[in-house]
Amino acid sequence: MNVNREPIRVALLGCGTVGTEVLRLLQDQPEEFAARTGAPMQVTGVAVRRPDKHPEVPPGLLTADASALVDGDVDVVVELIGGIEPARSLLLRALRSGKSVVTANKALLAEHGSELYAAADEAGVDIYFEAAVAGAIPLLRPLRESLAGDRIHRVMGIVNGTTNYILSEMDATGAGYAETLDEAGRLGYAEADPTADVDGFDAASKAAILASLAFHTRVTASDVHREGISGVTPGDLAAARQLDRTVKLLSICERVVDEDGGESVSARVHPAMIPSTHPLARVGDAYNAVFVEAEAAGELMFYGRGAGGAPTASAVLGDLVAVARNRVVGGRGPRESAHAKLPVQPMGKTPTRYHVSLDVADKPGVLSQVASTFTDHEVSISVVRQQGRGADASLVVVTHTAADEALRSTVESVARLPVVRDVVSVMRVEGEPS
Amino acid sequence: MNVNREPIRVALLGCGTVGTEVLRLLQDQPEEFAARTGAPMQVTGVAVRRPDKHPEVPPGLLTADASALVDGDVDVVVELIGGIEPARSLLLRALRSGKSVVTANKALLAEHGSELYAAADEAGVDIYFEAAVAGAIPLLRPLRESLAGDRIHRVMGIVNGTTNYILSEMDATGAGYAETLDEAGRLGYAEADPTADVDGFDAASKAAILASLAFHTRVTASDVHREGISGVTPGDLAAARQLDRTVKLLSICERVVDEDGGESVSARVHPAMIPSTHPLARVGDAYNAVFVEAEAAGELMFYGRGAGGAPTASAVLGDLVAVARNRVVGGRGPRESAHAKLPVQPMGKTPTRYHVSLDVADKPGVLSQVASTFTDHEVSISVVRQQGRGADASLVVVTHTAADEALRSTVESVARLPVVRDVVSVMRVEGEPS
Repeated sequence: MNVNREPIRVALLGCGTVGTEVLRLLQDQPEEFAARTGAPMQVTGVAVRRPDKHPEVPPGLLTADASALVDGDVDVVVELIGGIEPARSLLLRALRSGKSVVTANKALLAEHGSELYAAADEAGVDIYFEAAVAGAIPLLRPLRESLAGDRIHRVMGIVNGTTNYILSEMDATGAGYAETLDEAGRLGYAEADPTADVDGFDAASKAAILASLAFHTRVTASDVHREGISGVTPGDLAAARQLDRTVKLLSICERVVDEDGGESVSARVHPAMIPSTHPLARVGDAYNAVFVEAEAAGELMFYGRGAGGAPTASAVLGDLVAVARNRVVGGRGPRESAHAKLPVQPMGKTPTRYHVSLDVADKPGVLSQVASTFTDHEVSISVVRQQGRGADASLVVVTHTAADEALRSTVESVARLPVVRDVVSVMRVEGEPS
Repeated sequence: MNVNREPIRVALLGCGTVGTEVLRLLQDQPEEFAARTGAPMQVTGVAVRRPDKHPEVPPGLLTADASALVDGDVDVVVELIGGIEPARSLLLRALRSGKSVVTANKALLAEHGSELYAAADEAGVDIYFEAAVAGAIPLLRPLRESLAGDRIHRVMGIVNGTTNYILSEMDATGAGYAETLDEAGRLGYAEADPTADVDGFDAASKAAILASLAFHTRVTASDVHREGISGVTPGDLAAARQLDRTVKLLSICERVVDEDGGESVSARVHPAMIPSTHPLARVGDAYNAVFVEAEAAGELMFYGRGAGGAPTASAVLGDLVAVARNRVVGGRGPRESAHAKLPVQPMGKTPTRYHVSLDVADKPGVLSQVASTFTDHEVSISVVRQQGRGADASLVVVTHTAADEALRSTVESVARLPVVRDVVSVMRVEGEPS
């Protein structure tokens, strides 16, 4: 490939752990990038809040004025600031002035993706964002491109490392949520304000991005049903273990087909029990893994590091090479694909399965009372396990698939039965035949 | 996306299980493809050897004259014939007349990939081949594009289903190779002539393609060291089990860095022991899985169906949408990336590790004789296990990394020691720290 051409000029917004790695890798092997791109890659500036705090960056590149950097002579803007503003304004400004964009900003894409796509489209430039979901794992490009001729039914994955660490630790130690979160904070696995992770906001943004790509439909973070892990108890984990299951925080995007063949999209984040034999059950804290089920391709799994400076930088650089190549050869990457316009289903209508673990009185008729409560709500039972222990008994019920609101109200009715002493655990079940 | 434009005309060469699925999926949801591509997709013809044998194809589309179909008014040629000729001539003809190509032909790409790339380049058209390796698993696009900004160290995978089935069955039943191969033939897991699978030709073609993409270097099938599974014995599998390992036929592509920092590529296919806890150990026969280790991204795994009509069709259609989109928006996919031009290392020089299982006389001094033979060849031992059983003893040695030829000649010397009664198993070890 001929590389005797003008360099591709790159502006970097933000220089934390990811930005530092991007810069290092770009400067480490310039010839490699030139050969792969078809033109040399030149970083024209690095915008940071406090230029004096970045001794690792050549001083001539540093600036506190991100707007001026974006407005300058650059071909590609790489955004690693995170958050909605000023990232959104800066990227819109970049796109509108004909600059391509590479970003790792999941929150921004999950809320304002369409606005960014539209701006890119109008200017005929690219927006790439592989690093926004599951770090280094090449996941968005396969969804956007490799599976473009297939029909995706389901995307289900572990895409948040902090919550995966906390749940794994709770399972290993038997400790409670609050205690384990504190420990995670001390060890650097959880941020000082862990809300985005533990309440599922991070996973919900990623679910919105995945659902949009998988189903050719605009899905925003606010469309995603979201439950975090703060309600997960040692009792839930113990109940899971008893049925050889484990609890994970899952991001689930499903194509739901109703009885009349009408289609909708379900996008949700919640803790769920999955079988211990399920490949997602073994995914350790630093790793992410995503299952994709497609009509023709069948079951696919993508596994790798979900966060961290170098892995995220790998995804950013892959996008940067693609965007730069498009500039060199005159092509364009995929645009927004939202033609399907499927409605997003409310959680209540979404078909799910429940695992319910109860403490009940150990006397005749208890099982039939509980079972008939399920029947009254037209919820069908898949598994029942009753075990006496003195005056009490432990009763575990796993349902077949039903609308989530029907399951929820069934549990409420069951909880009110006088023979039910305690509802020990209520958790959705995923990853097994219904 | 505006779809009021001329259709993208597609010629299909070959219509076996994959072609039939491609045709079915294209005809099933034409609006979907039009929306994703930006133009309607129109199959202009299907070339097969015996048009009268294809009642599933609309008769107006069928032709026995592939050359005429390729020469006609088409934009994209999809080749699913397999083998070198006439596929090679037909695709060169297509590319030279400005038609883009989508192919699943691993043998052709592994031998004549550069010639095809060059023809595509000269005409400014695309050649895509995701389906050539690991069926439905999006693997080549991530290697070619997502990881384009990273530095790949290693690609290691199970990419042949037939051999994976036979090894799994041998392990489960204790039966020998010949017997299990016969059974696999009866059950449809092995072809009437199984040579391409069991002798590793299929896996070697795939290794050549993977190594070329991963290391930006031309690697052909003949560069790949190839050992099939016909030499694997129940004794090998038993020896593996004793150390909690399992035997898999692996395609391995490595960047090898010598003491002076000089780089070369090792591409090889051979049976190897991997730990039972390694994710590849659990990959069942119908599935393929590929591990990728990259400098920044770390460890990635891709898993899915490696063969079959529908999964392969999914990969072909993904490529078809990409190629068609490039036609519509005026872009180009990645070209050949062979700038690194690394030498391919002969197998003898490649660093590997051996597992050697011996029957030895159970008397003093045996271990020291065996150990000093390894030392004489400057091969360092990692694990030794000796277990007496009457007059004999079982001695297992696992080495540290050494040049493959040094390991091989060590084993030859050990076999000649009078105290060594039998060499039960010799197998390379992969997937664990050296």
